[in-house]
Parts: sequence; C-alpha cells; structure tokens
Amino acid sequence: MPKPLILVSNDDGITSKGIRVLVSVMKRLGEVVVVAPDSPQSGMGHAITIGETLRLTEEEIFEDVKAYKSSGTPADCVKLAKHYVLKDRTPDLVVSGINHGSNTSISVLYSGTMSAAIEGALEGLPSIGFSLCDYSSNADFSHVEEWVEKIAIQVLENGISKGVALNVNFPPKRNEDIKGIKVCRQADAKWQEEFDERYDPNGRKYFWLAGNFVNFDKGEDNDEWAIANNYVSIVPCQYDLTAHHSISQINKEWDWDKL
Amino acid sequence: MPKPLILVSNDDGITSKGIRVLVSVMKRLGEVVVVAPDSPQSGMGHAITIGETLRLTEEEIFEDVKAYKSSGTPADCVKLAKHYVLKDRTPDLVVSGINHGSNTSISVLYSGTMSAAIEGALEGLPSIGFSLCDYSSNADFSHVEEWVEKIAIQVLENGISKGVALNVNFPPKRNEDIKGIKVCRQADAKWQEEFDERYDPNGRKYFWLAGNFVNFDKGEDNDEWAIANNYVSIVPCQYDLTAHHSISQINKEWDWDKL
Repeated sequence: MPKPLILVSNDDGITSKGIRVLVSVMKRLGEVVVVAPDSPQSGMGHAITIGETLRLTEEEIFEDVKAYKSSGTPADCVKLAKHYVLKDRTPDLVVSGINHGSNTSISVLYSGTMSAAIEGALEGLPSIGFSLCDYSSNADFSHVEEWVEKIAIQVLENGISKGVALNVNFPPKRNEDIKGIKVCRQADAKWQEEFDERYDPNGRKYFWLAGNFVNFDKGEDNDEWAIANNYVSIVPCQYDLTAHHSISQINKEWDWDKL
Repeated sequence: MPKPLILVSNDDGITSKGIRVLVSVMKRLGEVVVVAPDSPQSGMGHAITIGETLRLTEEEIFEDVKAYKSSGTPADCVKLAKHYVLKDRTPDLVVSGINHGSNTSISVLYSGTMSAAIEGALEGLPSIGFSLCDYSSNADFSHVEEWVEKIAIQVLENGISKGVALNVNFPPKRNEDIKGIKVCRQADAKWQEEFDERYDPNGRKYFWLAGNFVNFDKGEDNDEWAIANNYVSIVPCQYDLTAHHSISQINKEWDWDKL
C-alpha cells in the first residue's frame, strides 16, 4: 500500500514550534507536504485573500519534506495546496496546528487552525485541527505527540463523516498523565471583551482588544470540561450552520400576513 | 415605548451603498448607531484583530445618526460597539450589510457580513446579516428595502432563538417582483478554486484567487434554490458547530484499544 499523503498547515506560521512537532509525528505515518503561512495568523477565522495577491515560496525548513510558505491565511494555504501545489494528487489527510493556545468552545469561530481544517473538509478531505491549551511560544508538546499520532491513525483508517472536521484540543502539560479522549460537544462559553484605551505619541486614540474567557456551561460532555479534567477533547465540527430548530420556530411565530 | 436601538455594521466599509440603504431603512424603525470598517473587509470571515491596535473614529456620514469607522474587521466592529461605544446600553437589534454580493450556502463561512451578525448573536442580541446577490458597487437595492424592513420588524417583535443569527439573501433586481420569503437550509455548494499564476515586474511569482461557485444541491428547500427562483432566502445559522451525529459515529467506529 502506498504511504498516505498528508498535508500540514497551521496558523502560527511555518516557523512555529507546534508545526515542527506536527510534521515530525506525521512523517512516521506518511509522505508530508507543508503549506503554511509565512507569519502568524491567529484570530484570522475563516478569512481568505480577495482583492490582494498571494505569494507562495518553496522553503527548505523540514528535513525530507516539501514545504511552502504563503502570504495568505490558513484557509488560503489549504486552497493553494489542493488546487496548485498538489493539483494532481489528493491528500489522504489534512492536519493543522499544533496551535499554541486553546481552540475549545467558541474559539473555533476565530481560529485560523480550525479554518484550515474546515477548508480541508470542504474539499472532501479528512481533516483535523490540533491545539494545545498553552499559549507559550515555547510550549511543552512532549505529552501530546502519542495522542496526535493515535488520532491521525484512527482518521486514516476510519475517515470522518462528510462535512465534518475534528477540533482536537490537548490539556497543557501537567504533573499527571492525560487520562484519555472525550468525544464531545462545543462548550457554551464566550469571550467577555474589554477594550484597553490608549493614546499614541501623536495624541490619537487606539485600542487593544482584551478580555476574559467565561464558561457558562455546567455540563460534563463538552470540551471545556474535558480539558479541565485532563482529557483530550475531540469536537466534530460541521460547516453546515443551518439551525434547523429555528426554521420551524420562525415559520410558526412570524406573522406572514405582514410579509 | 422607547424607540428600539439598532446597531448597524457591514463588511464593504462605511461608505458603501449597501450600508447607506440599510441605515435609511433602520431609521424608520428606531435609533440607529453605526460602527463599520473604514475599508472593505470582504472575505474576512470571523477574523478578529489580535496583536495589532484598533482605531475607532466618529464620523458624520449619515444624517442624524451616530456613526463610527474602525480599522478593524466586522467582528471587531460589533465587539467595539457592544463593549465601548454602547457600553451602558443594549441594542435591540444588530443588522449587517446590505452586502454587495451573495452570501448564500458555504459563503457564510467567508462572509464578513455574517461574522458581524454571528458576533451579535454571541452577545445574545437578535442579529441579521443582509446580502444582495449582485456584486456591483452601484447595485440596485430598490426592490429589497421593503423586505429588509418587514424582516427587521418580525425580529424586533419575535426575537430569534438563542445562539442563532439570520442569513438573509435577496435576489438581484429582475423584471418580475420578488415572490416572497423562504426560510430554508444552507445549500450544499462550494467554490471550485483556481489560482491565476502571474509574475510581477521583478520576476517574482504571485497568484490571484479565482474560481467558480458549484452547486451540488438538487433540493428545493435551500437558499440557492430560493434565490434562483426569485425568493428572499432566510437561513437561521448557529455558531455551535458540533456535529452530534459524528460524535456517535466516532464512538462506534474508532478502535479505542489503540488509543
């Protein structure tokens, strides 16, 4: 059987520690091609580059791995990989990360890491976004390598439902071993924003986005609970956003005579 | 009863025609405050500004309406409005648009218009993104004003389910009147990308993202069908991306002994 072809991307940029760890694990499983942003793209959500040009440059960064850096977003990188770099070949797996920082709960919406994975799913490819709940640029990934490999093997063997990408988060390195995996739902939590108001040397006002993460969710079947309790969380995420329950609510409650 | 407070944003920028139309309709319904990007932000998805500063400037653009332009993304604009501009007041409605161009089907993921609406929903506010399926900067919005008003009134009166924002698309101006509204699901369609490869005057390669929209959906209960048949489409969109069906599939199929 030929080795699987694995596309690697991320949002922290091609020189981050997290992508180096991910590439080293994926090399055990197959042929790896990297297309990743040339600079950090955190918080880019599912942004794509429209109305501006894109750059793509081959770089020797990883031993024995074809690697390209791009001026674009994580979603652009997956598009460039699929439709240009790997034009005549179809990846067996798309992996993104390992993100430096949590992408649990609502953070999935803002996450460049997950946008690369969801872009892969849109292309019909089994896709996984990996994040470590530790924001340090020099974070310790040693406790997650075996889990990254196990999860990737399961996806290569079993696939993922159509229209779904996996959002995998790992607890930070703690004194006890990771307890296992919880396949769970996205926690009901949000960022409680504050804006830090300042003045530049010319007296013009500017703001920094700041704020705290607030968890409203009391359940034990969600990703926040899993991470807090030292489990790996896997949330299968779909890109069909239709709220079917709301369709019937609108049809029942709205006054159609007024429309 | 006090007039409702209505927050208006968009992704085409505060000077676009679409936001002028939206502001003029909303002024009939309540007190309007505008916080919108100072330049076009199409394709920004749910990007937010992290690691860079944000600007916010009050501008007299719309008659009798408080308006602010920001250097940020549409999602940033709604955050700035909620947590800074309107800090002590809660909007009764958040509207975004009217976008110059379709945001049906999968485009919801890439849409800055819808990210502003989803950000509103995240803040617990009834929120609607409006888009006209006509990309022209001078598009004719005359046939949609009455529908924008009717839909906003329904939402002010009935609210929207928690965790849901409405994605409203209007057909382009045609020779026949709009037939009505279809509350429907997101069509199964995607962008089939191509990259247009060129060389700059210094001989360095660059790319333009290009491509076609491909509709795989044969159903008549989706937004693509509605627009093609001259109906207004309303897709209620949820920001909880959990694919519940996939949780049980994974728990059944994966080999947990290997994990």
